Amino acid sequence: MTKVIDFQTDPSKYRHWRVDYDGEVANLYMDVDENGGLFDGYQLKLNSYDLGVDIELADVVQRMRFEHPEVKVVVMRSGKDNVFCAGANIRMLGGASHAHKVNFCKFTNETRNTFEAAEEDSGQKYIAAVKGACAGGGYELALACNYIMLTNDSTSSVALPEVPLLAVLPGTGGLTRVTDKRKVRRDLADVFCSVEEGVKGQRAVDWDLVDEIAPNSKFDDAVAARAAEFAAASAKPSGLTGIELTPLDRTFADNGSVSYSLVEVEIDREGGKATITLSGPEGDAPASTDELQAQGADSYMLKLARELDDAILHLRLNERQIGLVAFRTQGDPELVAAHEQLLLDNADHWLANEILKYWKRVLKRVDMTSRSLVAMVEHGSCYAGMLAELLWSCDRSYMMLEEFDGDNRPLATVTLTNSNFGTYPMGNDLTRLQTRFLGAPEAVEALKDKIGEPLEADEAEKLGLITYAFDDIDWEDEVRIFLEERASFSPDAMTGMEANLRFAGPETMETRIFGRLTAWQNWIFQRPNAVGEAGALQRYGSGQRGEYNMERV
Amino acid sequence: MTKVIDFQTDPSKYRHWRVDYDGEVANLYMDVDENGGLFDGYQLKLNSYDLGVDIELADVVQRMRFEHPEVKVVVMRSGKDNVFCAGANIRMLGGASHAHKVNFCKFTNETRNTFEAAEEDSGQKYIAAVKGACAGGGYELALACNYIMLTNDSTSSVALPEVPLLAVLPGTGGLTRVTDKRKVRRDLADVFCSVEEGVKGQRAVDWDLVDEIAPNSKFDDAVAARAAEFAAASAKPSGLTGIELTPLDRTFADNGSVSYSLVEVEIDREGGKATITLSGPEGDAPASTDELQAQGADSYMLKLARELDDAILHLRLNERQIGLVAFRTQGDPELVAAHEQLLLDNADHWLANEILKYWKRVLKRVDMTSRSLVAMVEHGSCYAGMLAELLWSCDRSYMMLEEFDGDNRPLATVTLTNSNFGTYPMGNDLTRLQTRFLGAPEAVEALKDKIGEPLEADEAEKLGLITYAFDDIDWEDEVRIFLEERASFSPDAMTGMEANLRFAGPETMETRIFGRLTAWQNWIFQRPNAVGEAGALQRYGSGQRGEYNMERV
Repeated sequence: MTKVIDFQTDPSKYRHWRVDYDGEVANLYMDVDENGGLFDGYQLKLNSYDLGVDIELADVVQRMRFEHPEVKVVVMRSGKDNVFCAGANIRMLGGASHAHKVNFCKFTNETRNTFEAAEEDSGQKYIAAVKGACAGGGYELALACNYIMLTNDSTSSVALPEVPLLAVLPGTGGLTRVTDKRKVRRDLADVFCSVEEGVKGQRAVDWDLVDEIAPNSKFDDAVAARAAEFAAASAKPSGLTGIELTPLDRTFADNGSVSYSLVEVEIDREGGKATITLSGPEGDAPASTDELQAQGADSYMLKLARELDDAILHLRLNERQIGLVAFRTQGDPELVAAHEQLLLDNADHWLANEILKYWKRVLKRVDMTSRSLVAMVEHGSCYAGMLAELLWSCDRSYMMLEEFDGDNRPLATVTLTNSNFGTYPMGNDLTRLQTRFLGAPEAVEALKDKIGEPLEADEAEKLGLITYAFDDIDWEDEVRIFLEERASFSPDAMTGMEANLRFAGPETMETRIFGRLTAWQNWIFQRPNAVGEAGALQRYGSGQRGEYNMERV
Repeated sequence: MTKVIDFQTDPSKYRHWRVDYDGEVANLYMDVDENGGLFDGYQLKLNSYDLGVDIELADVVQRMRFEHPEVKVVVMRSGKDNVFCAGANIRMLGGASHAHKVNFCKFTNETRNTFEAAEEDSGQKYIAAVKGACAGGGYELALACNYIMLTNDSTSSVALPEVPLLAVLPGTGGLTRVTDKRKVRRDLADVFCSVEEGVKGQRAVDWDLVDEIAPNSKFDDAVAARAAEFAAASAKPSGLTGIELTPLDRTFADNGSVSYSLVEVEIDREGGKATITLSGPEGDAPASTDELQAQGADSYMLKLARELDDAILHLRLNERQIGLVAFRTQGDPELVAAHEQLLLDNADHWLANEILKYWKRVLKRVDMTSRSLVAMVEHGSCYAGMLAELLWSCDRSYMMLEEFDGDNRPLATVTLTNSNFGTYPMGNDLTRLQTRFLGAPEAVEALKDKIGEPLEADEAEKLGLITYAFDDIDWEDEVRIFLEERASFSPDAMTGMEANLRFAGPETMETRIFGRLTAWQNWIFQRPNAVGEAGALQRYGSGQRGEYNMERV
């Protein structure tokens, strides 16, 4: 699987999903084209999915927010008879490399999180309207919705058959959402996760696996009524008009580097390193939300978020030999802060809100990227507000101290804005500053006095905002030594270390899914009982069960 | 490594530790016999350790509590010059099976937790007095102490060199305690975990890696002064007299079964199943704490805890083909409750407190056991108080409903006591009932009305205390089907599933160590970069670095 995977799509290209817009309610149909797999070698039968199906879903959810703010309720349903969704395609998983499986699960998890959060972030509530079999990743799609309705007939059920059938775990949050979101009693959860055929009817309600059942004959009416009721109860303003998410301006070079309009990704495959340079805005912030809306996808804050998001995803899936990502910024920090300030001042405006929430998600995507991340705070940089968050999303930061010979760019600074104190929480529900100063909450309070001040290297170091400040004499050597050292470490150990050091403090459903559940799944994804020649994933569909080494570890 | 591992030892057999008792302060010396490894093929140089060293440490900590309640401060130090502890022995790790590595880490983690909790549970505070190199597992020993002192010389440092040196993670809580206990700033933690040589002197204090440094010449005096100060400030009563932890009464049968005085472990290797039967007390509860103390290690509550603890450890390490453990109890539930009640009524008595806290730890050991656990509530059983906790520690429970033909034992019942509402919290800091009813806290409140009532199967099922109640007609088939089904599943998938379903609700440092950190370590422990022929663990000491596949997953 070495094909380049493109995370950009639009409705004209969809093969697996369609949306019927009907005022405040949108009906989202999963209708997977079985011949539309991202790779050869498998068919996407029974609404099973691969990464390509999920890329479309992520696009649907994103466009729902930006292009269709009039929508208050999204009903996720199947376009096929007798099956809601059979989950991730097993033949795809059986043929995929370990790295692809891991990255596939990560992206699908992020997509589940993004529509799960749509109610709170954007006032768009997702209902799963389940008719037919809803198994494994199919039930996990439903679990991430805000409300689950199940038709009450003899064949419709919800199930997590991964353990008995495939010897792996439900990979997109199923176990965690069963215990921590739906709070299913743990022995019942144990039973549920052990029965291939799942649970249906009243028992599914009694066990808290679904919210509501309705007879088949009345199901569509019940769903429509519930959707209308939720739409009527929504606090989201009515009659909003969206903006168009126009295609990204993006060029790939032969050496793998990628140029966007505000983002440059420089690839150094030999050095195992990518440098992402983010540019500050060219002009003044929009004067008003009207102007912001008129600029739409061309507005600085939105364009930069979309380009950064795409760049990160591209690196994750398509440049797996790149172990280190260095962030740079260049531009005017005051202008960055001004563009962000318009959104902060108008956070009750739908588009301002959507852009800020999108930045929250993009920054989480950075946090969750299993590459060593370093921020380079060079002269001329513009680490203000949401860009300053990158400093604390990274594993380390290096900052230029005082003037450098022959460098006439403005001295390197870091500028805190109000957003650094709550606008972009991490997956652990703390801000990056709170996480950073977990042992010294008073330090976060003290930093509020510095909002708006361009902080030079010595002060930024003293305040603990950066890791190291080096002057002209030391900078080059120190940075080189760091890069060489990092390149000499085992990537697996770095992945494990970073996954453990980045999320201090409280755990949430989200950190638990990415930390605990994912790590166990990754472990199982290497075990012969699952992926060996006689393992369950390989034997699936052959009529033979997997052969297991019965030793417990 | 098929040798039977014995978790029972006593000071007369110690090869690696010694304790100098000096009134309220005990000096605990790690002085590992390099030829005293549990297995052949490695030498325990530089105070490095294997499981055998840790079994002794666990015994020291346990005897400190029960045999030496006069001790208020324990100073952990090295009996060797120039090295505090070099951590887990790398050659041992390099030669160990995956299952042994995983179980080794689990037991050492439990031992770290037990002395870390000694201050809160038993009023015994642990000081790590670090002279010389303190690396990897050595620093993790120190991290689990309540206070870390480091001598300030040119060679003494603390370090977590696992990632750069061995391509694995610190395996006994190091990363978690660095971020969540000591709250080291995450970029500094990243630096710390990347430098083989570690951090020494004032920087170790500045980075919150240790609590205090003192010059070499004054170090011993500073440690003694600090120990005396902590002892003087301790709220623990003075002048307590301990009891002797006499050897367990234990017999192994040829087929693997084990008989203790109150615990029977029946091994069915072909069926992959062990049955642990716990007996109720033979006689009345002691009339007073004086009588309890006179009974000492023969008192019912303590003896049962010790036997159960040993049985669980024996199964984990020595019977790895056993995938399922069934618990049974037989005896008088009223007597069980009466024996427990004496302790609950006298929880301020040192020995009553120690026995209850020990039950807390044993029950956590059960929770953390990666085998499918089922409780069988048969007629004649005595699931009351701490034994009722087993019902909710297990993945499922089956209870006999109404009379069974030819069975004249008293009807099966479950009896709640006050202890079920707070005495034995799980690793997530909730009670097992709170965890079980995470979505319905009011159900836990309602259960308080049932304290002391022997609840028969229909009521226990209705209250949600058990999973299934079956009558004489269905019991045998249902239990057989469950056991067969369970035996057909992949053990790896079960381990992952159980690790995710058992600990709903909040995460703590403890659940994070066993859930997140352990899972990532287990993942890395299978990756070629660590354990392959050219991996770092195999190449350690050869003068060659590991060869790494640089792909990030």
